[in-house]
Amino acid sequence: MLIVQKYGGTSVANAERINHVAERIADSYLAGNQMVVVLSAQGSLTDRLLQKAHEINPQASKRELDMLLTTGEQQSVALMAMALNRLGMPAVSLNAVQIGLEATDHYGNARIKCIRTGRILAELDKGNIVLVAGFQGVNSHGDLTTLGRGASNTTAVAIAAVLNADLCENCTDVDGVYTADPRVVRDAKKLASITYDEILEMSCQVFHNRAAEIAKRYNVKLIIRSSMTEESGTEVVAQKESSNMEDLYVSGVSVDRDVAQISLWGMRGRKAAAFNIFALLAKEDISVDIILQTPGANNITDISFTVSKQDSDTALAVLESNKESLGYEKLTHNLSLAKVSIVGAGMTASPGVAAAMFEALYENDIDIVMISTSEIKVAVLIDESKAEKAMQVVHEKFASFLRV
Amino acid sequence: MLIVQKYGGTSVANAERINHVAERIADSYLAGNQMVVVLSAQGSLTDRLLQKAHEINPQASKRELDMLLTTGEQQSVALMAMALNRLGMPAVSLNAVQIGLEATDHYGNARIKCIRTGRILAELDKGNIVLVAGFQGVNSHGDLTTLGRGASNTTAVAIAAVLNADLCENCTDVDGVYTADPRVVRDAKKLASITYDEILEMSCQVFHNRAAEIAKRYNVKLIIRSSMTEESGTEVVAQKESSNMEDLYVSGVSVDRDVAQISLWGMRGRKAAAFNIFALLAKEDISVDIILQTPGANNITDISFTVSKQDSDTALAVLESNKESLGYEKLTHNLSLAKVSIVGAGMTASPGVAAAMFEALYENDIDIVMISTSEIKVAVLIDESKAEKAMQVVHEKFASFLRV
Repeated sequence: MLIVQKYGGTSVANAERINHVAERIADSYLAGNQMVVVLSAQGSLTDRLLQKAHEINPQASKRELDMLLTTGEQQSVALMAMALNRLGMPAVSLNAVQIGLEATDHYGNARIKCIRTGRILAELDKGNIVLVAGFQGVNSHGDLTTLGRGASNTTAVAIAAVLNADLCENCTDVDGVYTADPRVVRDAKKLASITYDEILEMSCQVFHNRAAEIAKRYNVKLIIRSSMTEESGTEVVAQKESSNMEDLYVSGVSVDRDVAQISLWGMRGRKAAAFNIFALLAKEDISVDIILQTPGANNITDISFTVSKQDSDTALAVLESNKESLGYEKLTHNLSLAKVSIVGAGMTASPGVAAAMFEALYENDIDIVMISTSEIKVAVLIDESKAEKAMQVVHEKFASFLRV
Repeated sequence: MLIVQKYGGTSVANAERINHVAERIADSYLAGNQMVVVLSAQGSLTDRLLQKAHEINPQASKRELDMLLTTGEQQSVALMAMALNRLGMPAVSLNAVQIGLEATDHYGNARIKCIRTGRILAELDKGNIVLVAGFQGVNSHGDLTTLGRGASNTTAVAIAAVLNADLCENCTDVDGVYTADPRVVRDAKKLASITYDEILEMSCQVFHNRAAEIAKRYNVKLIIRSSMTEESGTEVVAQKESSNMEDLYVSGVSVDRDVAQISLWGMRGRKAAAFNIFALLAKEDISVDIILQTPGANNITDISFTVSKQDSDTALAVLESNKESLGYEKLTHNLSLAKVSIVGAGMTASPGVAAAMFEALYENDIDIVMISTSEIKVAVLIDESKAEKAMQVVHEKFASFLRV
């Protein structure tokens, strides 16, 4: 089998953990597999480098930050190659330039354009374990870029896709995807499997959305599992098998605290309002999540939407400076909200799911600020202080439907 | 003017020093110069990375060590770009891949093959201060190599050569080249100038021999000066100007403790002896310094030579395992010697110089183990414990001849 593995920063934080991971890789290799292993920077190294940069220039350019940060993953792969060599394993470390991972010019948050597989395949042919620096790419200027935080997952899935790997193992510090955060919900259960779409909708901490998108598009066989234990983890699949097509499946409850709600009140020109706002935000590369527009009368409307907290300052500044052309009366924002979602591929045909969620929140006196639904998700915006409670009561309500 | 500057690890060891160096670079830039600046890794970073590697694998491969170590200089250039940006200066950091510094495949101690100037020139044209990661190159496999310790000097001089720079400033933690180590010889004086050949013969700590060779070959205008003060430093020139052609010039006294003496006794086949030995050592990439062969009788001879201490184990092993074919009786070595040299372009025509040196050593009861002379140098091998004393008495003897 050709296996792509990914280990995060915690898994390679010090010499002891590097040696432990090296043994795991060696085991898979000695079992007859071809191994490509993507690594993150060691433990807190990325944060320490950012701190160094901040000390010198709090407004450091993204290009130079990328030049600085990409050294972290390069160190990890070199050290892992040394650890594998010590075990007698043939291994070679490669950075983004060497594997030819071409990315867009967008420093700090570039997208993968393509991966030239020549070098990786040549090293596999030589019998080498190939260690790839995650999180980084090369842009059209020949400069180093980074793919956004947590993007080592994306690197691993993208490599698995282009190599048509038999398996992509995302080895992390949790042992799989749970029906809810087990630190908050005591009886949360580990899922044996989850669909690509569900993992996308869960916007869960354990797996980067962009990685899930690539996995889905290229149908990468993906497993999320612990780098410490031998437990089986959670398999990510295209579709769940079901013995009964009418079963109601909810895969999990998740909470996202990185939510900033922005509202524009009294906008004139109802029809173009949404377009005008979101064109401005798109120009700043700001993604918008939940959008709510009141029906409005007399060509006047109110629009609310959410963005990530880090984008909220920019979004507010852009909207402020375009007050005239947008034609609104008042701009407000709220940073103390959380988004609680239930996700499940089985809920499409079940209108009762949303109702049951609202009921659980109502019974526990939790106000809903905004609602958003998709084919496989119901998300509500509530007060952040009630997020944990909401997660618990919603999880309890669906306990009988949970398919793990 | 197009100026290439080089700053060593001490000069960029922390945020404060980086900011200080950034101000110096900015001053030169604002004075109307085009600036290319080569940097080493911060302070003890290279040693700390080596320590990390050693913890994981004491016999780490040179390829992986190079992959690890090259991150140090990349961090320095990124941080310096941030510091310059904060001063409002346009700056861009580049690593070996980006400047196209092609080197030989020899990991850990590669030689520069060529530097593609396209990217550097393009950045200079844009008005950027160009920051180049020293010490590193890319080999024919597209892999990173390092150019040997202290090789950031070599990078700087090589870049100055290919760009045909007006000036190459080697900014370091000493303020120039002295007639002797000022920590040992109290009345040592700073040289206003020194020739390329002299600096080569001095094998001094402040400047890498390979850098001096490139500077000489390409006639790079070179200055060695402090990165802390505005003092003028020592200019490295092709030839010293002299008002009187018959003047006796001695530029300095230097000591080199990295000396291992190896002797082969009772070698048969006197004529081929030297060739046989040094062909074997060359195969191992071991440089030999002083060589002494006794005239010998009956086709039997003794040969002594010196190598650097780090090469002595390999050299002894090779000689040991070829005892039969080399045909010697006994192999001995001595690691407690030091080489003391006097260097001066003016001594060519003055046989009295060597005699005066021997006299100083004789008067002070310092035994000479071996002697080696060149056009501009007289070097003696003495007991290491007497190295400082030798330096002092020799410096004193030549005090009247010193041209600073």
